[in-house]
Amino acid sequence: MGTNGSLEVIPLGGLGEIGMNLMVYGYDEKLLVVDCGLTFPGSDTPGVDVIIPDATFLNENRDRVVGFVLTHGHEDHLGAMPYIWPNVEGPIYGSAMTLGILKNKFREHGLLEKATMIEVGNRQPFQVGPFNVCFIQVSHSIVDSAALAIKIPLGTIIHTGDFKIDHTPVDNRPTDLYSLARYGENGVLALLSDSTNINRQGSTTSESVVAGALAKVFARAQELIIVATFASNIQRIQQIIDAAQRENRKVIISGRSMQNNIEVAKSLGFLRIPDGVLLDMRSFPHLPRKEIAVISSGSQGEPNSSLSRIAAGDHREIKIQPGDMVVLSSRFIPGNEQTIWSLVNRMFRAGAEVIHESNLPQIHVSGHAPQEDLKLMLALTRPKFFIPIHGEIRHLQSHRHLASHMGVALENSVVAENGTRVIITADSITLGDPVPSGRVFVDGKGVGDVGDIVLRDRKHLSEDGLVVVVLVVDKISGAILQRPELLTRGVIYEEDHRDLLEQVKEAVEEALHLGPKGMDFTEDEEVGPKDLAQRAVRRFFKKKLGRRPAVIPLVMEM
Amino acid sequence: MGTNGSLEVIPLGGLGEIGMNLMVYGYDEKLLVVDCGLTFPGSDTPGVDVIIPDATFLNENRDRVVGFVLTHGHEDHLGAMPYIWPNVEGPIYGSAMTLGILKNKFREHGLLEKATMIEVGNRQPFQVGPFNVCFIQVSHSIVDSAALAIKIPLGTIIHTGDFKIDHTPVDNRPTDLYSLARYGENGVLALLSDSTNINRQGSTTSESVVAGALAKVFARAQELIIVATFASNIQRIQQIIDAAQRENRKVIISGRSMQNNIEVAKSLGFLRIPDGVLLDMRSFPHLPRKEIAVISSGSQGEPNSSLSRIAAGDHREIKIQPGDMVVLSSRFIPGNEQTIWSLVNRMFRAGAEVIHESNLPQIHVSGHAPQEDLKLMLALTRPKFFIPIHGEIRHLQSHRHLASHMGVALENSVVAENGTRVIITADSITLGDPVPSGRVFVDGKGVGDVGDIVLRDRKHLSEDGLVVVVLVVDKISGAILQRPELLTRGVIYEEDHRDLLEQVKEAVEEALHLGPKGMDFTEDEEVGPKDLAQRAVRRFFKKKLGRRPAVIPLVMEM
Repeated sequence: MGTNGSLEVIPLGGLGEIGMNLMVYGYDEKLLVVDCGLTFPGSDTPGVDVIIPDATFLNENRDRVVGFVLTHGHEDHLGAMPYIWPNVEGPIYGSAMTLGILKNKFREHGLLEKATMIEVGNRQPFQVGPFNVCFIQVSHSIVDSAALAIKIPLGTIIHTGDFKIDHTPVDNRPTDLYSLARYGENGVLALLSDSTNINRQGSTTSESVVAGALAKVFARAQELIIVATFASNIQRIQQIIDAAQRENRKVIISGRSMQNNIEVAKSLGFLRIPDGVLLDMRSFPHLPRKEIAVISSGSQGEPNSSLSRIAAGDHREIKIQPGDMVVLSSRFIPGNEQTIWSLVNRMFRAGAEVIHESNLPQIHVSGHAPQEDLKLMLALTRPKFFIPIHGEIRHLQSHRHLASHMGVALENSVVAENGTRVIITADSITLGDPVPSGRVFVDGKGVGDVGDIVLRDRKHLSEDGLVVVVLVVDKISGAILQRPELLTRGVIYEEDHRDLLEQVKEAVEEALHLGPKGMDFTEDEEVGPKDLAQRAVRRFFKKKLGRRPAVIPLVMEM
Repeated sequence: MGTNGSLEVIPLGGLGEIGMNLMVYGYDEKLLVVDCGLTFPGSDTPGVDVIIPDATFLNENRDRVVGFVLTHGHEDHLGAMPYIWPNVEGPIYGSAMTLGILKNKFREHGLLEKATMIEVGNRQPFQVGPFNVCFIQVSHSIVDSAALAIKIPLGTIIHTGDFKIDHTPVDNRPTDLYSLARYGENGVLALLSDSTNINRQGSTTSESVVAGALAKVFARAQELIIVATFASNIQRIQQIIDAAQRENRKVIISGRSMQNNIEVAKSLGFLRIPDGVLLDMRSFPHLPRKEIAVISSGSQGEPNSSLSRIAAGDHREIKIQPGDMVVLSSRFIPGNEQTIWSLVNRMFRAGAEVIHESNLPQIHVSGHAPQEDLKLMLALTRPKFFIPIHGEIRHLQSHRHLASHMGVALENSVVAENGTRVIITADSITLGDPVPSGRVFVDGKGVGDVGDIVLRDRKHLSEDGLVVVVLVVDKISGAILQRPELLTRGVIYEEDHRDLLEQVKEAVEEALHLGPKGMDFTEDEEVGPKDLAQRAVRRFFKKKLGRRPAVIPLVMEM
């Protein structure tokens, strides 16, 4: 891989889907891993805890891996580290905030002692095997994010990570336009750029516009204010604290992930909180409600999150009262809308006013560059080759199109998907042989043991339920020794349908008695009592209820 | 109900949730039903086919029902008729298009002969029991929609149904502003108005702006064009046909529901299609692709719909080829986004360009009035009392707020939810005793037999799967006669985990052998082999895999 002076770009995650970003660069027989994220399950992956990329390729080539570089601290860029890194190992490079978040994770997984983490500053090149890497400051919805310049003898690669071009960021750390322009001026071999917001027109809306929206809401609030946002959005948390202070409210943090991130950010100087502003949850009952602002995690309606418990009336301290104000300073992540709206309705019912992106758009801004800023990135770096990253195929295609408008000829760009090997030489970009790739499901303690078949079973169970029919037969004669037993789940409410179950049993008995005749078996099928019982149950439910539960016959031989 | 000259307004559906609209008006001991809709299942109702309102109140008062009035032909306004009407009966009033759609439904359910349907024209009052009803033309995303003026001695009620105020509708049938204003001038006792788009600012975007977007897309297309839209949106279908004609393309309709609606609309004169423009699907292979426009149903990515089959490569005639253009002239209904995007990605992968609301906003417009038009409705009708309808509680609350800005004092409006009885007299609006209400699930042939317990089981099964453990015991001695049998679904892939299943069996045998000691049973619990086996299996999966499948023990006594 990456021999004869060519570079290989091997996406294992994040291309062709949103989330679980994992990119591998191969040069001179060595591999550099950039980001190692996870994604969260959707309606097609019920019961799964998290989803990580298939890292078979890394596991099989662990001797060649020279290190991991993390662009920022979001779950979709580092969340898979505890699962993937232990099988690969190698030094881990990242910014202070990124490593702070990773350390918490590694501590939870008992990995902290084993890992070598190297904190990296912007504009300070470092060598990892044959790769000379330099962090370039970018603005994003988490502080201390970076794009990467990766230099090899063949040329310089710019890997943007997640970014936007915010000229007035709250942390005063705008995207480093000079560095990007300097690389562009000196020659960029390839740009790999964030495609998340390719479908949005215009330029980045600055994080600082949220201040205005928050100020308006805080000025109007009469009673308790609860603001929910993403636990990692430190700039947003800073702005909420600032707004609270201006209205002389104390701030209480609710939610463990948010507590953790705030600790890390404070210790690194990313949060400026005067003494006495942050109070412990235990102070809640002792202060007038109108002097409190609660900052809560759970803006996606996650079950058991702080905000869900508040909405359900299950929170130990915080109950919604008429006149309270609830603010969702966050995006509704697609797939979560119904859950979030039902939470919003519960708050309305309890008498709160609820502010969200739909009724006050500037209460949240995105962390990703829209079209005009994606053009700016292309204009600054002027790459010879282009690979759109971070997105479904529709995003990647559109981004490739945009790059062609910006002068990157179509033959100089490719849309790759996870597992596609891209080979770059001084004057060509082509697709090579694929590598193993895919989604690995983490469920409880199991990593990868829940696969597509189990998920298909779960989906079938969830839609149609299941019927188990147990037969006890004589081992020798094959005679039925007992009435069949029946058990259903998710089909009908058994308590109310004893008679129906009795009818099913009778149908099974009749089928066992009559044998395969008239049951649509083909002539050469070998038909046992198991098959007869299954067929009889299926037929009964289809005819009687129009349903197709999974029917599992179980034969006990005595 | 509705005695002493008071009016009762009893919502059985559509208030506190989106869809399945069903309103009952009670006056002088008689009941008038307005609309009778269904809603579609979401992630919390897996396997359910459709959801209808609980009509217990109507069933119990069927002698008092004087009739059903339908405002328009959408599923969420008439889709529950085949399930609810047969138990209640009474004449059915509606516009030509509405009754045309209902007739198709009633025919499918074998109800057509039993029903009396009375076609109603706009501005032509008719008497139903004590209610004098008059249809008022409104524009909406289906032709022949109406608002209702319901006159009783107490005063006039305006019930908007779904509406928008489109000054340039494609069918030249704008909302009848004069009638609304005249009722307002003469005095409106109460307005019940559509809250769906209360969170959108501004005025209605006319259906006719879609023509411009379609024209642009059609002019640019080089090969096959496929346009997906809602099967009932006749105006949209007209515009797609017009665009196709201008570019000399023939039109082929794909999808049964769309075929049916087009038939009804054509026969009623709502569609103007010159001869020779519409072709049968069988013509598809015989024409050059660039001379065809396909209009397809399935814009929500419904499984087995025409568009899904095309995207999956399963359509008998139509396969996507590079250079084709696919247009989603439709909204992404919340909850369906992931399904639709995955369909879009499949089309992109096959080489098509896909146009949708996110990359070309004017390719679809909403059928519901946004804020400025809701104000206009209030300004025209100037009601004394106000009840927001059609929406979740957050919509209803916001609409009530808007009405108060428009001069309806807060004490003259109420937010009601399904089952809340609202009592209106000449000078008061109050809440009365509730009536039974709720959601009834239709699954296969069963109406109402799938309830919350079955759905909870289905959800549990889908997340954690299920383990059945079968014990065979001696009826007299209680001795275990056989090794326990084990069966799992949705937990692990059994083929790969024979050893694990063996371990579970051993754990069960050990538990049966040791008895209740050390198993966390309380002292006074009666513990049988069933309990021991269940507990042992649960403990095993939790400890070994961190999972909590449903564990069902089944004891066969011999």
